[in-house]
Amino acid sequence: MPQTPTNLPPAVILLSGGLDSATTLAIARNAGFACHGLSFDYGQRHHIELEAARRVAAHLGVAEHRFVKLDLRAFGHSALTDDIAVPKDRDPGAMSHGIPITYVPARNTIFLSYALAFAEVIDAADVFIGVNALDYSGYPDCRPRYIEAFERMANLATRAAVEAGRKLTIHAPLIELSKVQIIQRGLELGVDYALTHSCYDPGAASGRVCGRCDSCLLRRRAFEQLGLSDPAMAGPF
Amino acid sequence: MPQTPTNLPPAVILLSGGLDSATTLAIARNAGFACHGLSFDYGQRHHIELEAARRVAAHLGVAEHRFVKLDLRAFGHSALTDDIAVPKDRDPGAMSHGIPITYVPARNTIFLSYALAFAEVIDAADVFIGVNALDYSGYPDCRPRYIEAFERMANLATRAAVEAGRKLTIHAPLIELSKVQIIQRGLELGVDYALTHSCYDPGAASGRVCGRCDSCLLRRRAFEQLGLSDPAMAGPF
Repeated sequence: MPQTPTNLPPAVILLSGGLDSATTLAIARNAGFACHGLSFDYGQRHHIELEAARRVAAHLGVAEHRFVKLDLRAFGHSALTDDIAVPKDRDPGAMSHGIPITYVPARNTIFLSYALAFAEVIDAADVFIGVNALDYSGYPDCRPRYIEAFERMANLATRAAVEAGRKLTIHAPLIELSKVQIIQRGLELGVDYALTHSCYDPGAASGRVCGRCDSCLLRRRAFEQLGLSDPAMAGPF
Repeated sequence: MPQTPTNLPPAVILLSGGLDSATTLAIARNAGFACHGLSFDYGQRHHIELEAARRVAAHLGVAEHRFVKLDLRAFGHSALTDDIAVPKDRDPGAMSHGIPITYVPARNTIFLSYALAFAEVIDAADVFIGVNALDYSGYPDCRPRYIEAFERMANLATRAAVEAGRKLTIHAPLIELSKVQIIQRGLELGVDYALTHSCYDPGAASGRVCGRCDSCLLRRRAFEQLGLSDPAMAGPF
């Protein structure tokens, strides 16, 4: 794993193991932060993404990488945690219409709340999250207004903000980028997208990507627009 | 358990098993909500409070009661989750000075985030939390400004708010009350405080209250001001 000098300011990076969070980690490293990865085992069907998170962290380099086990299945109601069919082969028009069944109630709010706790404990003033408002316009908790409101709340919530006056910044560097622009930025920064895993419905035995869910289709089309093939489609993961 | 008519609007009630959350549940029931209790097993040393939460829910009546297991020990840094001594025998002046070591990083933000997910799943527009700004002035996430900021963020976060236009309200009915006023209100509403458990440092074997931590002292003094003795001091819990 590449070494991280210890005199860099610490930042918490939410790291799912997908294309977006890998790019976000590369951006945070490039911006000069000591990156503390945070990944969640939340009962997701695509549990294999946690292995991808581990690979991505090792590839790009982190100061540390923590895994937190959550119980989002307790509330259910999403194709990502329940036995609800993941939609397949949808065209971009259908994807952009309404909030998809793969939405998990309050997921980003829960993830960012844990990031807030982690940031306070390691004295970090910066949190990075790879949300994207364009490709996932149906997810309410991927919009700039939401991120701004979370940041404002966070700065009233913690001892760090109140006693030490340390302003927390929530960075969402991909929020206004297209998937094509995200991949271009990641390739400039040396991200190996073969290590990432974005599929909502990987094979139970093989762990191979399905190639047909919204997430697989969005990234495949973006690679095609760049004249490339998605390396995650070829394996080995 | 008292029956709850099913035609009442649902609300999520954060229920720790302490004096404040028991009073909050009584207030929510009195206001006409079908109460869905939510309790957290977060690695707290005073784990026995979960039994109190169960007793209080059965005593006052709830539509359902869910328990969620969280991993706050992963971040540590609090006397409530770590092997750090709980302060004892402090006078009110010392208690009101600064943020105590019993503060858990971002705890209320994490709890409210789960409440937000639960509310969305059961179609609730109301969440109740028993935070109190006066007795616990050192906790940043017990202040009215914080609660307002969380509510604003929550109303940008969920499918319920965005697609269905259902405004979520975070109720903090105790926030401006003194401990004496809280107890008076609870007694009016029939709360049996012998069932509650507020101690930060109960006996490992007996589960009995210590009588000397900030939480024990605050409630004992309040009962004394009302010419009563704290029933939790006498047991049986």
